Amino acid sequence: MSKKIKKVALVGGTHGNEMTGVYLIKKFQKNPQLIARNSFDIFTLLGNPRAIEIRQRYVETDLNRCFSQQSLADLNSILYEQKLAQEIANKIKENQTDLIIDLHSTTSQMGLTIIISDGHPFHLQLAAYLSSINPSLKILKYSSSQEDLLLRGLTELGFAIEVGAVAQGVLDGALFQKTEQLVYRLLDGLEKYNQDEHFSRNNSLTLYQVIERIDYPRDGEEIIAMIHPNLQFKDYQPLNPGEPLFLTFEGETLTYQGEMTVYPVFINEAAYYEKRVAMCFAEKREIIVES
Amino acid sequence: MSKKIKKVALVGGTHGNEMTGVYLIKKFQKNPQLIARNSFDIFTLLGNPRAIEIRQRYVETDLNRCFSQQSLADLNSILYEQKLAQEIANKIKENQTDLIIDLHSTTSQMGLTIIISDGHPFHLQLAAYLSSINPSLKILKYSSSQEDLLLRGLTELGFAIEVGAVAQGVLDGALFQKTEQLVYRLLDGLEKYNQDEHFSRNNSLTLYQVIERIDYPRDGEEIIAMIHPNLQFKDYQPLNPGEPLFLTFEGETLTYQGEMTVYPVFINEAAYYEKRVAMCFAEKREIIVES
Repeated sequence: MSKKIKKVALVGGTHGNEMTGVYLIKKFQKNPQLIARNSFDIFTLLGNPRAIEIRQRYVETDLNRCFSQQSLADLNSILYEQKLAQEIANKIKENQTDLIIDLHSTTSQMGLTIIISDGHPFHLQLAAYLSSINPSLKILKYSSSQEDLLLRGLTELGFAIEVGAVAQGVLDGALFQKTEQLVYRLLDGLEKYNQDEHFSRNNSLTLYQVIERIDYPRDGEEIIAMIHPNLQFKDYQPLNPGEPLFLTFEGETLTYQGEMTVYPVFINEAAYYEKRVAMCFAEKREIIVES
Repeated sequence: MSKKIKKVALVGGTHGNEMTGVYLIKKFQKNPQLIARNSFDIFTLLGNPRAIEIRQRYVETDLNRCFSQQSLADLNSILYEQKLAQEIANKIKENQTDLIIDLHSTTSQMGLTIIISDGHPFHLQLAAYLSSINPSLKILKYSSSQEDLLLRGLTELGFAIEVGAVAQGVLDGALFQKTEQLVYRLLDGLEKYNQDEHFSRNNSLTLYQVIERIDYPRDGEEIIAMIHPNLQFKDYQPLNPGEPLFLTFEGETLTYQGEMTVYPVFINEAAYYEKRVAMCFAEKREIIVES
């Protein structure tokens, strides 16, 4: 039997302009009974208070890239977010937190997505359970060399909820309500897991796995093309060889030159221009979850 | 005969995270022949270069609220945008500019909108002409006490193009192309106006006029409700008494309590939370344009 989940941290506002998470956390802080469950304790956290105040992703640097072992141990860190990451890491540790759930939003049309880092049986059980309740929920496996930099990486079982499309700084009522319901079902799932680690009756699962990150075509630093209109808001839909990928400012279509069908995600995420990511390519896989 | 338009300023990036205008101006600076016309000179301007660089609306304060006579004359202005506004005003004056066209974008579903400040015959002719070419184009009359603060107010005939919905920091290929075509048709319209000030053959026009700005319900500074999902992205559509307006975080619907049908615009614009504007109410009017 695996370790039970005893302590959960529910985090929003790790990025200060992702309002769905910010206002859900504020609601839960006002009404803690909404997220209280019997088999575990839960506490809430607004990740980046100063960024939330100015409605920006971050003040000095992206908080969600400040959680590497090295950065957390660096006593000479001077940036606001570097110091904040150390405070958050201490709080997570002091509270003996088993699980971090980090609430994000995106300008990409990713609907409701759960992002996991690997194929841990806990995640697969939970994902299969939630997919059985909401078949439109997407499960994205996104392991990268940057993984250890992320807030959710402070706990082995941490994962993110990513919802969109919604503009930065905007609160979308429908997405707020859908995300709220997902959080409740997720906490119910943790209850079930604590009773039986093979609790999911759903034994198949569609998993999207990120395999590559694609930058915009550039001339030096300057981008020279946009996401092709045919691809905009088409996250999780198949992109086949030869289909439109980018549109140059002169109106020329650049097509996908790969040899296999891929499933783009994070298409035209506002915050990723500076990270040189126009979209991520994912593979789609059907997997069997042990039940 | 009215004064001819001899010098036009085409401005983008007055707000540094409104990418449609930024990248259109960059395209036109590379390819000036695209916007060259016979009867007038045109020059381009990136409004707020430092804000564009950091992909934010502004660095220290909203540039597009720094153009009052008083602010422009203040030698003690210290904020980056206050000084920038003075530089821009000087350039506009030195170039003997007759007309400023300021390119903006919004997170509201406003499609292609031309924003004029009053019912000047020049604007009505141009609006009628452009509407005859593109019937989905909206004409919004937005006169406010803040009007003299705006960049476009530096010239009597200045106006704005407002396009959406698009997230801040995001370049939407389809909107980019539509806005580009609108700019070309608009410049063609200026050519026609210079030949005949009653050039429009279209003699009727639908005009939306802003009559009121509506804030979010708040408890102190903190908002306590969101735009109701039924209203999200419904800019320019009729809102009748008793219909849903806001949704509280507890899930309660707040309805529109007015007595007349209004047409909301700038619904859920990200930049307007800090300005305490959830949306603007407009009246819809059919007017006859002299031909």
